[in-house]
Amino acid sequence: MGLELNEFHLGVCYYPEQWPEQNWSKDYRDMHNLGFNVIRVGEFAWSIFEPEEGNFEFDLFDRALDLAHSYGLKVILGTPTATPPAWLTYKYPEVLNVSKSGVQFQHGERRHYNYNSPVYKKMCARIVERMTKHYRHHPAVIGWQIDNELNCHIADFYSNSDHEEFREWLKDKYVSLEALNTAWGATFWNQTYNDWEQVHLTREGTCQSPNPHQRLDEIIFFSESTISFAKFQAEIIRKEAPEHWITTNGMFDHLDNHRLTRECLDFYSYDSYPNFSTIYPDSEEFPLLDRKWSWNLTKTRSVSSQFAVMEQQSGSGGWNNQMIMPSPKPGQMRLWTYQSIAHGADMLLYFRWRTAPYGTEMYWHGLNNPHGQPNRQMEEAKKIGQEMKMIGTSIIGSHYEAEVAIIRDYPNEWDGELDQWHGKLQNQSVLSWFKVLQYQHIPVDALYMNEQTTIDDLMAYNVVIYPHAAIMTENTAFLLEQYVKQGGKVIFGCRTGYKTIEGHYSTEVPPGGVSQLTGVALQDFTVIGPNEKAPTIHFGRNGYTECIAEQFVDIVTIHAESVQVLGTFSEGYFKGSPALTMNQVGNGCVYYYCSAFNYKIALQLLDEMNMVSPVEEVMEPPQQIELSIRAQVNGDRYAFLLNYSSEKQDLYLKVKRIELLSNVELDGKIQIEPFGVYVVKL
Amino acid sequence: MGLELNEFHLGVCYYPEQWPEQNWSKDYRDMHNLGFNVIRVGEFAWSIFEPEEGNFEFDLFDRALDLAHSYGLKVILGTPTATPPAWLTYKYPEVLNVSKSGVQFQHGERRHYNYNSPVYKKMCARIVERMTKHYRHHPAVIGWQIDNELNCHIADFYSNSDHEEFREWLKDKYVSLEALNTAWGATFWNQTYNDWEQVHLTREGTCQSPNPHQRLDEIIFFSESTISFAKFQAEIIRKEAPEHWITTNGMFDHLDNHRLTRECLDFYSYDSYPNFSTIYPDSEEFPLLDRKWSWNLTKTRSVSSQFAVMEQQSGSGGWNNQMIMPSPKPGQMRLWTYQSIAHGADMLLYFRWRTAPYGTEMYWHGLNNPHGQPNRQMEEAKKIGQEMKMIGTSIIGSHYEAEVAIIRDYPNEWDGELDQWHGKLQNQSVLSWFKVLQYQHIPVDALYMNEQTTIDDLMAYNVVIYPHAAIMTENTAFLLEQYVKQGGKVIFGCRTGYKTIEGHYSTEVPPGGVSQLTGVALQDFTVIGPNEKAPTIHFGRNGYTECIAEQFVDIVTIHAESVQVLGTFSEGYFKGSPALTMNQVGNGCVYYYCSAFNYKIALQLLDEMNMVSPVEEVMEPPQQIELSIRAQVNGDRYAFLLNYSSEKQDLYLKVKRIELLSNVELDGKIQIEPFGVYVVKL
Amino acid sequence: MGLELNEFHLGVCYYPEQWPEQNWSKDYRDMHNLGFNVIRVGEFAWSIFEPEEGNFEFDLFDRALDLAHSYGLKVILGTPTATPPAWLTYKYPEVLNVSKSGVQFQHGERRHYNYNSPVYKKMCARIVERMTKHYRHHPAVIGWQIDNELNCHIADFYSNSDHEEFREWLKDKYVSLEALNTAWGATFWNQTYNDWEQVHLTREGTCQSPNPHQRLDEIIFFSESTISFAKFQAEIIRKEAPEHWITTNGMFDHLDNHRLTRECLDFYSYDSYPNFSTIYPDSEEFPLLDRKWSWNLTKTRSVSSQFAVMEQQSGSGGWNNQMIMPSPKPGQMRLWTYQSIAHGADMLLYFRWRTAPYGTEMYWHGLNNPHGQPNRQMEEAKKIGQEMKMIGTSIIGSHYEAEVAIIRDYPNEWDGELDQWHGKLQNQSVLSWFKVLQYQHIPVDALYMNEQTTIDDLMAYNVVIYPHAAIMTENTAFLLEQYVKQGGKVIFGCRTGYKTIEGHYSTEVPPGGVSQLTGVALQDFTVIGPNEKAPTIHFGRNGYTECIAEQFVDIVTIHAESVQVLGTFSEGYFKGSPALTMNQVGNGCVYYYCSAFNYKIALQLLDEMNMVSPVEEVMEPPQQIELSIRAQVNGDRYAFLLNYSSEKQDLYLKVKRIELLSNVELDGKIQIEPFGVYVVKL
Repeated sequence: MGLELNEFHLGVCYYPEQWPEQNWSKDYRDMHNLGFNVIRVGEFAWSIFEPEEGNFEFDLFDRALDLAHSYGLKVILGTPTATPPAWLTYKYPEVLNVSKSGVQFQHGERRHYNYNSPVYKKMCARIVERMTKHYRHHPAVIGWQIDNELNCHIADFYSNSDHEEFREWLKDKYVSLEALNTAWGATFWNQTYNDWEQVHLTREGTCQSPNPHQRLDEIIFFSESTISFAKFQAEIIRKEAPEHWITTNGMFDHLDNHRLTRECLDFYSYDSYPNFSTIYPDSEEFPLLDRKWSWNLTKTRSVSSQFAVMEQQSGSGGWNNQMIMPSPKPGQMRLWTYQSIAHGADMLLYFRWRTAPYGTEMYWHGLNNPHGQPNRQMEEAKKIGQEMKMIGTSIIGSHYEAEVAIIRDYPNEWDGELDQWHGKLQNQSVLSWFKVLQYQHIPVDALYMNEQTTIDDLMAYNVVIYPHAAIMTENTAFLLEQYVKQGGKVIFGCRTGYKTIEGHYSTEVPPGGVSQLTGVALQDFTVIGPNEKAPTIHFGRNGYTECIAEQFVDIVTIHAESVQVLGTFSEGYFKGSPALTMNQVGNGCVYYYCSAFNYKIALQLLDEMNMVSPVEEVMEPPQQIELSIRAQVNGDRYAFLLNYSSEKQDLYLKVKRIELLSNVELDGKIQIEPFGVYVVKL
Repeated sequence: MGLELNEFHLGVCYYPEQWPEQNWSKDYRDMHNLGFNVIRVGEFAWSIFEPEEGNFEFDLFDRALDLAHSYGLKVILGTPTATPPAWLTYKYPEVLNVSKSGVQFQHGERRHYNYNSPVYKKMCARIVERMTKHYRHHPAVIGWQIDNELNCHIADFYSNSDHEEFREWLKDKYVSLEALNTAWGATFWNQTYNDWEQVHLTREGTCQSPNPHQRLDEIIFFSESTISFAKFQAEIIRKEAPEHWITTNGMFDHLDNHRLTRECLDFYSYDSYPNFSTIYPDSEEFPLLDRKWSWNLTKTRSVSSQFAVMEQQSGSGGWNNQMIMPSPKPGQMRLWTYQSIAHGADMLLYFRWRTAPYGTEMYWHGLNNPHGQPNRQMEEAKKIGQEMKMIGTSIIGSHYEAEVAIIRDYPNEWDGELDQWHGKLQNQSVLSWFKVLQYQHIPVDALYMNEQTTIDDLMAYNVVIYPHAAIMTENTAFLLEQYVKQGGKVIFGCRTGYKTIEGHYSTEVPPGGVSQLTGVALQDFTVIGPNEKAPTIHFGRNGYTECIAEQFVDIVTIHAESVQVLGTFSEGYFKGSPALTMNQVGNGCVYYYCSAFNYKIALQLLDEMNMVSPVEEVMEPPQQIELSIRAQVNGDRYAFLLNYSSEKQDLYLKVKRIELLSNVELDGKIQIEPFGVYVVKL
Repeated sequence: MGLELNEFHLGVCYYPEQWPEQNWSKDYRDMHNLGFNVIRVGEFAWSIFEPEEGNFEFDLFDRALDLAHSYGLKVILGTPTATPPAWLTYKYPEVLNVSKSGVQFQHGERRHYNYNSPVYKKMCARIVERMTKHYRHHPAVIGWQIDNELNCHIADFYSNSDHEEFREWLKDKYVSLEALNTAWGATFWNQTYNDWEQVHLTREGTCQSPNPHQRLDEIIFFSESTISFAKFQAEIIRKEAPEHWITTNGMFDHLDNHRLTRECLDFYSYDSYPNFSTIYPDSEEFPLLDRKWSWNLTKTRSVSSQFAVMEQQSGSGGWNNQMIMPSPKPGQMRLWTYQSIAHGADMLLYFRWRTAPYGTEMYWHGLNNPHGQPNRQMEEAKKIGQEMKMIGTSIIGSHYEAEVAIIRDYPNEWDGELDQWHGKLQNQSVLSWFKVLQYQHIPVDALYMNEQTTIDDLMAYNVVIYPHAAIMTENTAFLLEQYVKQGGKVIFGCRTGYKTIEGHYSTEVPPGGVSQLTGVALQDFTVIGPNEKAPTIHFGRNGYTECIAEQFVDIVTIHAESVQVLGTFSEGYFKGSPALTMNQVGNGCVYYYCSAFNYKIALQLLDEMNMVSPVEEVMEPPQQIELSIRAQVNGDRYAFLLNYSSEKQDLYLKVKRIELLSNVELDGKIQIEPFGVYVVKL
């Protein structure tokens, strides 16, 4: 049913079980005064709901929800399955997850369970059923979050239940052991199985290099196990509380979030913590830092065109011994809030009202300071609350507007996790492209190719960039060809189309299914060694500068007359070999770049394709400012201008426009304050 | 009973079981000729004493001790419990220690046992009882060393016995599971226990981030287990050999050495290996290197005002595959000997007579070279022997003289081990302060706050520095307040007083119990991110230079008129906020510094408080020289001047003084040789 | 019987089981056309030969071998014991290897078995017997490769069978526990055993520092286990297929390849992958990179004076997630081929015909590209095939000519693996010496000292370099003394002769057995600390420059008048102490260098000894070119000149010579192309 709201939902994650009950009223009143209308509760409270096996108690949350309702707050309930109670893991240790080498993860942290334990699934089904039955008619409750951050921390599962279920899953997939042996290339290193009992998930080996095809199947299995775990919960909720919507908060490894959402959820949610950029910074040229979270939000939007941010960073984050982040600077929390909204969030909850006064996350600070008093983030929240009252309903339901898409797909992502011969290229190229588009103020979408993708999905864009699709399925190749013939532009990078869907070397000459489309054929190739100078690439045109190849070189020949060579390698034993080609096909064209992308080559390709910002005629934003546009069905278009810098930035408006948050008319050269936000109706 | 000696005890660690018996006589004669009067033996010789279960044999050590006695050597016996025999670990594997993830440590190295195994405690009690009964009347024996380097290598214990004993310990501490759940903040991440059987020491988890309050209890438990292991040995020795004194040699993690000493020992001993500084150097500005061992000796002195150095480095140290240290340079062994004596050692034994010719420590060299001949260290030892004959009795029993103390306490040390939000600050600030005081020739003590600390303990000092007491107990806050009112000066750093004794966030506004005293209140704070520029601090006074904040910023408000702001942040969003405050209270005053200390701020604070060296009117030592003063009850005061440099140093005497080791009168500008030592009667 | 061939054997590793049968004919025809005459097959195909326990099937390989024979290809068969089938490891998990901490290595990668499992040995014996019985008369088969890369990846074995067999092995070696306790220095840290059942291989301990003498015995045991595993296979092959020769392909850790070859093989084989140098480069001065593989080939030659290269790198190597190497540049595969031949290979097979299209090694590319078409390496292979037809028979059987040897021995190598107090020196010094000799065009051998070494082995060389023989046996010392008296020159480095064969400190003054010979005696020593400046060494002679000591300093005294001091330390507390001495003994002389060798000191010692290149009168090769000489019994001598550089190199011939591969006369200043090879008859 999607996320169809009649007002912007702004709120906060709240933990009544961690705070004396006498304070709840004040908390709710404060929330109400900030303009909040929603809270999330309960996702780690199984022991409150079921303090002993089979003994259910709802009193504490009944009181908390009734009181919330009295302050006009809506409630999202989390199913508490991310942390089984101590009595459960003690009595049924088989519910625990196990490391690859066989070490069982014990009670005391979180996400220590596996998805395939029959006992655990039974216990989870019961608590979810009891909770939904109990709260189905509660006037405050509007929806459910299944579990919490599925696959966070650990996205690999090696309990006995997982090994057994994997075997059943493989029987379904392959039917015969012969088919399994073929798919896994079992003749290599004599891995052939002649009895199903011999088959396992990957296990501790001698070389830390598992069978890559087994590993790929294993990741698909982990994804499907996760979805199946969410699905039985979703089915219970749908049955017991059909008026409530269902979501979960992502996005983590080994999980097809698109399929998860399609099969289980009404919409998808994201947890946005941009200050991770202070501890894991983008170390490449022109770093994006917290602005890089826009790429995460872009991927989130590819799952749900409108989505919720279930946890939005509001304080300094960190655990006792890990992830020590600075506090957001004054204005940054508001900036990140608008970053989420600009990319499509129609509901947003801060994490969290107040930090837990104890436990591993006691330094994950919230809107109130740890000692009880409100802190400066409260003022920012209040301002946002007022702003959303003004413009929230105009914005909700609108769609992010982009004419370019970066194409992604799960098979390449998962295969590339182990396989550094293409996986490492994908990360580098996607980041380079996203960065260039950000700095050029050209909005971009992520488009995930799968069996449901149609030509219409592609035709929504003028240009698609599909960097290093090692696995290029027939279906994808066919769609891309149709797209180009109808006028689309496609950009490929090296290493395209050399693998089968099982991750084997294809017997076709790469780029395989898109050989005809690109007009090139792989002749030879080399990784650029860690101690080698990367070769320079020379472009024939005026105004183009040389660039340097990255990580890999494809040495190709041209097999179609329509192909133009735009750049050649000017160093190395492959000197003179094409580095960038362009093939006109139908109304469109196809670029093939024989290496991984960096900032410089991406920038030149934008120029080559004459791509400009959609606001070019209205304004000239500086590099430090992100541009996003949300458009309503009625034609209203809202430009979000976000200043990620701690310095004022100059912005030049060619045409007068009203800034909606301040209701001030902007004209000519104006300034946007540090961490400032403008919302301009175009 | 303390360490009350009538002559300085100088000697060596000796291993008769590792060397052919025919050589013992020569060894003892050589020791005697060096001026040695004591040896330590037996601490790793359980298999000699009890070659088979229940079969005791004392012949070898009987002969070794009788012969030692005939050369006038006194003997310290080690209880051999640091290395259980192979027959014991084979028959009773439950005595072995186990890693957190469940891997049992096997026979073949050392300290592979746990403190809570009932079988092991029984076995240890028997060997200690047999040894003490056997040697109680031996004329050479003067005392006992319990075990060897308790908690060295591994200070965590996860055997079944430990899990079980922890459960019993928690029952004693908390009585009810409700109280335990509250103390451990178990509602966070749904960790609530409803049966004692579910409770364990921390175990392998998904995130390498255990419950911090459980971890804090666990460390306290490890400390108490260690003390209890030492205590039953001490009780046997007290009963069987009441005339002998008892010590043990430290100092390692997860052990309250003060309580250990109070409850079990007559005095405390330290093992001093300053050449660890060659492989783990102080990487901060103005590095102290081997001189940093003076801080370790200072902490040792806080346990026992006079102490023994049971192992003093005499050769290059190292194991086959670890800790490869250079040989001490000519003169360094003597320098380090006087470093120990200057800080309060009244007994000192070299490690060791001769390196073990085999085994893991075969590169831990001693006074004799490995092939049997004496080496150059023998000459140094002989010189020291002669010197101690001259001045030893004048010095023993005297007390180190200091007017400043750095305050430490175990709760903050142990909580800060996991919690990097204050633990990392402590290390930085303590080292900075110690370094500045060293270079300014201002002797300093360590003062450990605990439930036994009195106002008199504090009043012994003009100034106390208590850098980042995250946990500030009521009792400590009260004592500090009394101290200031009576004229004391206290220096606090950021992060003071924000935690409860369980390691929870306190609900009081920090600095909590010392808010009144300091006159400041925490408003906001931030860690300084790893990729962020640390803010500059500006001081208003003439002659003060700017300094740079370190690691953390407290943003405080002033709530008392008596508070003067001495420095403010001159950068960042908190520009203008106080960085250093001073509050006059009663006859004393209190400084609050809103960051971690570095060399520069500590130096300016010394100046601010007009602190000068106690020898200022007698001499001007250069930075490279350490000054220590030992004072006798009769008023005699001895200044130790130690040159840590391999270069000669100039020293200027304003007043004539006799150097006691050379019996030379010093006057005006003189030179102290590389690694040289002067002992001057003040 | 050795490797006595009547034609050069050139070929390729082939995997018919991984490629559709209809393509075999084309493959074989292509091989034949390249000039190949040999293939290796079957080493990972156990599941093909025995798909179920006791059910043997030879059809696939029968067809593959018959077809190969029809194309004139000879076949080497691998025994498939490096990868037990899934049915075997599933039914008999005791055959699996286990990590030191007890984690069993599971099916799915390779080399996951142990050598001492009785079941595994029985299973291996049966498959080898069946294969040899089946193929003994096949006309294509010429020999056998036992297993594959014995001890690759993992050379430590801790299964129960290994622990048990180790105990038996120790009983044989020591007879009594007393002798074992003595050899293992068990009194240190109380490790004494009083029952054999208590004795194990080293196990998980508290300090990651096992008993070094136990560890040394353990490595010897691993070596002997490996040899014993190869031996029972060799005995079956000898019995069943007495006309076939036997080899195996090395060279890996914990294996005495010399004894292995002596006791089990006809000759030794090496797998040569010089592009590992692109990912693990020589980080020292004047790096050798792929040219460093000449040292590996030199060690190989020390095992078998003529040898096979069973796997010669022909494409870019790498696994999915590890070891990502660039493609060989055009010409490099040919260069490396001649590198192998120049050092003594009379048979050489490329790895591999075509990469496996799946599995962990799918990026280990071969002569054909992965998609089926031949790649540029095919052209190089064809050229080599033609060249070998021209000159192969002239070269085979000839011996590499060297007048210098670097001495190695297994006891020092294995003891030095754990013991960084001499092991780290060996690596540094051997590489420095090899490098200097390479750049000076002075061919060098490796000579492994063992109980079979004779004075004749030594007399084959004018100079021997024995860098840091910590363990110097009586026998070796005696041989070296004879050698010098008869005119030989010996160069020792520091740390010589301080250990017994068990790895204990010797009671003799170092250099122990060679004290007389060197005329020096160790007085003192020190490691050079990681933060210390290494001392300078000064030489008295004109034209010699100062050099810097490395890692360690021996401080020695001279005890023979014949000793000349050629260099002294000019810094440090040992300033003036001898750093380089020379002792004339009989007709020869002995150098003792009191530190580890680096490039500069080795270069000066060459000059000191007036060592020049054997081609000095014929030509002047530049540094970038390696010189090797192979000499026939008939006196023919072939100089191989190999250009490792990607640039042309100038070469100056003083005397006219014919280049055999091109049949061109070389004279005066000529150029050798990038990666070029000249073979010149001297």
